[in-house]
This record gives sequence, C-alpha cells and structure tokens, in this order.
Amino acid sequence: MEAVYSGSAMPGGCVIGVDLGGTKLLAGVVDRDLVVHHRASRRSPSADAEELLSQVVSTVVEARDASETDVLAVGFGIPSSLDVSFRDVIAERVGMPVFAGGAATLAMLAEHRYGAARGASDAVLLTLGAGIGGALVVGGRLVTGTAVSPGHMVVDLDGPPCACGSSGCLETLASGSALGREGARVARAASDSALGAALEAGRSITGALVTELAHDGDRAARDVVALVGMRLGVGIANLVNLLGSSVVVIGGGMVAAGDMLLEPARTVVRERALPGSREAVSIVPARFGEEAGMLGAALLAFDGLGSAAAAA
Amino acid sequence: MEAVYSGSAMPGGCVIGVDLGGTKLLAGVVDRDLVVHHRASRRSPSADAEELLSQVVSTVVEARDASETDVLAVGFGIPSSLDVSFRDVIAERVGMPVFAGGAATLAMLAEHRYGAARGASDAVLLTLGAGIGGALVVGGRLVTGTAVSPGHMVVDLDGPPCACGSSGCLETLASGSALGREGARVARAASDSALGAALEAGRSITGALVTELAHDGDRAARDVVALVGMRLGVGIANLVNLLGSSVVVIGGGMVAAGDMLLEPARTVVRERALPGSREAVSIVPARFGEEAGMLGAALLAFDGLGSAAAAA
Repeated sequence: MEAVYSGSAMPGGCVIGVDLGGTKLLAGVVDRDLVVHHRASRRSPSADAEELLSQVVSTVVEARDASETDVLAVGFGIPSSLDVSFRDVIAERVGMPVFAGGAATLAMLAEHRYGAARGASDAVLLTLGAGIGGALVVGGRLVTGTAVSPGHMVVDLDGPPCACGSSGCLETLASGSALGREGARVARAASDSALGAALEAGRSITGALVTELAHDGDRAARDVVALVGMRLGVGIANLVNLLGSSVVVIGGGMVAAGDMLLEPARTVVRERALPGSREAVSIVPARFGEEAGMLGAALLAFDGLGSAAAAA
Repeated sequence: MEAVYSGSAMPGGCVIGVDLGGTKLLAGVVDRDLVVHHRASRRSPSADAEELLSQVVSTVVEARDASETDVLAVGFGIPSSLDVSFRDVIAERVGMPVFAGGAATLAMLAEHRYGAARGASDAVLLTLGAGIGGALVVGGRLVTGTAVSPGHMVVDLDGPPCACGSSGCLETLASGSALGREGARVARAASDSALGAALEAGRSITGALVTELAHDGDRAARDVVALVGMRLGVGIANLVNLLGSSVVVIGGGMVAAGDMLLEPARTVVRERALPGSREAVSIVPARFGEEAGMLGAALLAFDGLGSAAAAA
C-alpha cells in the first residue's frame, strides 16, 4: 500500500485506532502509512457501561504493550448511543490523548481519504450490520456534527414496525437483522432447502448463516440475499437522487455477501435512480473492509495530534 | 425589512431576479436591501424553447424599462431541464451579465441568508408545486453543484408509478399534482361534498382547487389536504433522519394550504423522526413565499457582480 500520511510534519510513532461496534471491539496499532502493526479484539462487547470501559481499556493496553514503537494517542469510533464523558474516562485510564467520532463517519474518513471513495465530491457510506449506519461526503467535505441515519429512512410507508417507533425504515428491510428475519421466513416455507434444514436442525437463522448458505449455493438462501439486495437498492437510489452521490461505499459485516447482495442493488438503482445519476454512480464494497472504522479512528487520532501540535 | 446587502463594497444599483417556474415566469427589480421595486410576470411559460426565450427576454426588458435606477445584471433560477447555453443567449439579447442557478437552490439561498432558515447549520427546503424540488444546507453551506431531488425519494416501495420510471416517489404522493389526483379520487366517492359537486359540475380537480375548497371548509377537501400532509411528513422525517436538519422550509404554490397541510406533516414527523431530531426540527413556510426563488436569483446576481469586481 502506498504511504498515505507522510505529508504530516509530525514526527514518527503510531496511534491506536479503536472501532467499538455492536458485536465486536477492534483495536489496531497503526502508523502514518496506515499499516496495522498489531491488532487486539474482543467479541461481544458488554452492554454494561463499566464492564465495556474495562474491556476497552484492556484492549487498548494490550495493543499498546504489543507495539515496539511509541503510541501517541487513541482514536475511537463510537456508536452514537455512547456519551462523550466516555472519552475523558478512557484518556485518564490509558494515559494518552483520546479523540472520538462516530463509527460510520470515521469509516468514511478512511474510505474518502484513501479508499473506495477517494477523490469523490459526493459520496455515501452505508454500514450494514445488525442495524444500518451511514456517513456522507457533500461538496468534497465529510459531513460531521450532524446525525446521519440512513437506516431510518422510510422506504415502505406501510412496512414492518421499526425499533425507532417508525415503520418501513430501510433498517427493517435491508440490515443484517432483516436478512436473518427474511431467512427464517423462507426457511419455514422451503423445508427442502439447506436453509430449511438448518432451521429444522434447531440453528438460529441469522444474517451471517443466510450469507454462508448462499455462498454454499443454496438457492433459497441466495433468493433471500437477492431480495434484501433489491430493497437495499431502493435505499441507495433514494440517497443518490437526494444527494447526487457518485460513489456509494458498502461496509459492515453484511458485505460478506458480496455481489450476491450488491448486484441486485445495482439493478434496482439502474431502474430507480434518475437519469444522469443512474449511469454515473458506483456501488462498491469498502476498500478497507471491516477495518475501515478502525483505520478512520487512527486517522482521527493523527489529525487530532496534528491540530494539537499546531495549536501549541 | 432590515437592510440585507449593505455590507457589499459594490456601488448602488439594482439587479433583476427571474424565477422560471413550470407555471409562472416572475421577474423583479431588486435592490441591495432585497426590496422589490418592480415586478413583471407571465403566466404559462411556453414549452417551446425559442418562444420561452422570447418571453424571458420581454419580461426582463419590461422590468428593466420600469426601473428608475441602473440595472446591473440578471440572475436566473432555472429548472434543471434547461441547459446552460440558455444563459449565454439571454445575456446577448438583454446586454447584461447573466448568472444562473437551480430554482430551488436559489430559493434556499434567500431563505438561508435572510429568511426562514437563517443561521441554520443544517436545513432542507422543499418546493411543492406540480412536482417537488429541493435544496440543502449542510454544515452551514448551501449545497450546489449536485442534483438534489427529494421528490424522487421512494417512500412507498409498491406505490404508484412515477414519471421518472421509479414508483412510490414522494412526488407521486405529496406534490400539487398528487393533491389534485387524490382530490379527484375522493370527489368521485363523496358526491355530497363541495369537492364532489365541483367534479359533477365538470371542473378539473387540481391541487389549487382542492386547497381552495379546503379553505372554504369542505370536509372532504380538508381530508385530502391532511392525507397529503401526512405523506409529506414521511418524506420530511426521512430528510431529518438522514441529514439531522433543524429547519425544513416549505415553499412552492402548495404552501397556500398552510397549516392544513403542515400540521399533519408535523404530527407524522413527531412520530417518525428519531429522538433528538423530532423535538428539534421546525417545519415552516418560506418567509419569502412565492418570491423566494426570484429573490435568491437576485442575490446570485449581486454575488456574481461582487466576484466579477473582485476578480477585475
């Protein structure tokens, strides 16, 4: 990979980028060339704030201790549900400057600066996991300081109820959870499929399982992934029509479904986006995959150190 | 009205702002304080490009001849369907510098700088007419240079077909045309209403007629306006959830329906927008009403003259 951060006037050293997702806590020691030297992770971050804090601190310390070079700061991508005081407490416990931003916004920071949306004037990133997160680049600038929630865009007025209190939100139709729900529905109807067999064997029908069976070639599972992809396409067409975005970057765990998910989405976008946009838009997986958020958090930390140095 | 453009280093004089809408061509001689000294308008602009050009030129000339002060330039708000060469041809025929921008974008320029969205960091403007146009302010900046088409946001996957090739677009459910269509449907079912009587008398059921009968107190017409307002609310909730906008400005002819339209929209936004946004967002009519686009076009012309002077 090319050197991506060598323009900085800062001296050498690494930072730790942390992506605090709903199902996984990932930390990486990252240098100015965006090379990851060490990784530390925890499955299933705790829902209890105090336990989560301990997990975060132990993960950061584990990553720092594994690093041969100085670690200068920590950057965090956090879900919007966590409050800002979290940052100060961690800074105190790890004894380093801590910078924090929205998880999807930081994934877009990495993808826009060095990845799949590089150079795009107008771009959208969607993170498809248990829910749907998102971030925007408008007029060449990353949108920060405002809540970007494309998962709660209604695409089906009379659609299924959403946890947010609305109904027919994109998240109810095209998230990883939706993939699992649709998979379970189809499993009940198609007992001769691998999906049906999995249900009969007592397995929990999750989005990850549907994706796995689809990769194995199960027709029923593939149909479910395609259905969810088509609904995703409606959401993408909306974003493209609203914002004129030329690049749509898809991140999050559901990207594991690859073109089985993205091709149906692209087909719907060609049908539903406006002329001009429909030919121009690229719908692509995140270049940095599941590490986009972690790398963006590292970039935030380098940026923060740069500002702090400039201000000193 | 307070002086709004007196900070400029430019000398006195007026510009002509022109709003080239689908059903009306409005020109105004506007000074730096955004006071309109003269107006000239044409109903039903021609669909023929050459005739339309003649109408535009004659309207601009009529406005200029009525002005006692120098007219320095012309600003145009044009539908996205018109190409840029239009501008050069007009500049040649009227013998003044001509500046052009999107009609909804210019309405937002006026509303954001001096009107209902003044000072907002994140705001949306919707123009509700035969179709639905729109403009955005993101991070304090007016979004230009990209096609913003909120009218083609799908809010009902299996909704009615749209002229754009998609279906269930907001424009098919909540535009002035949709108001007329819903009005005609209800008129057929409610023959004892004023709406039903209008249909039987052979009148064409347009959005404007439904609005007029609703103002007169006809229950059926009021129900239709409320239904369209609720659908509008779904579209507004989507925009607010996606962009975290704190102000939504409603412009265009349909604003004539006032709170009969906006109250049902506000109710749906309180139900469907995310916590935080739903309490914070204001949904308000354009301060400059049907003149927002014309005044924004005048501001564009003043801005353009300022840049030209700065570059000279």
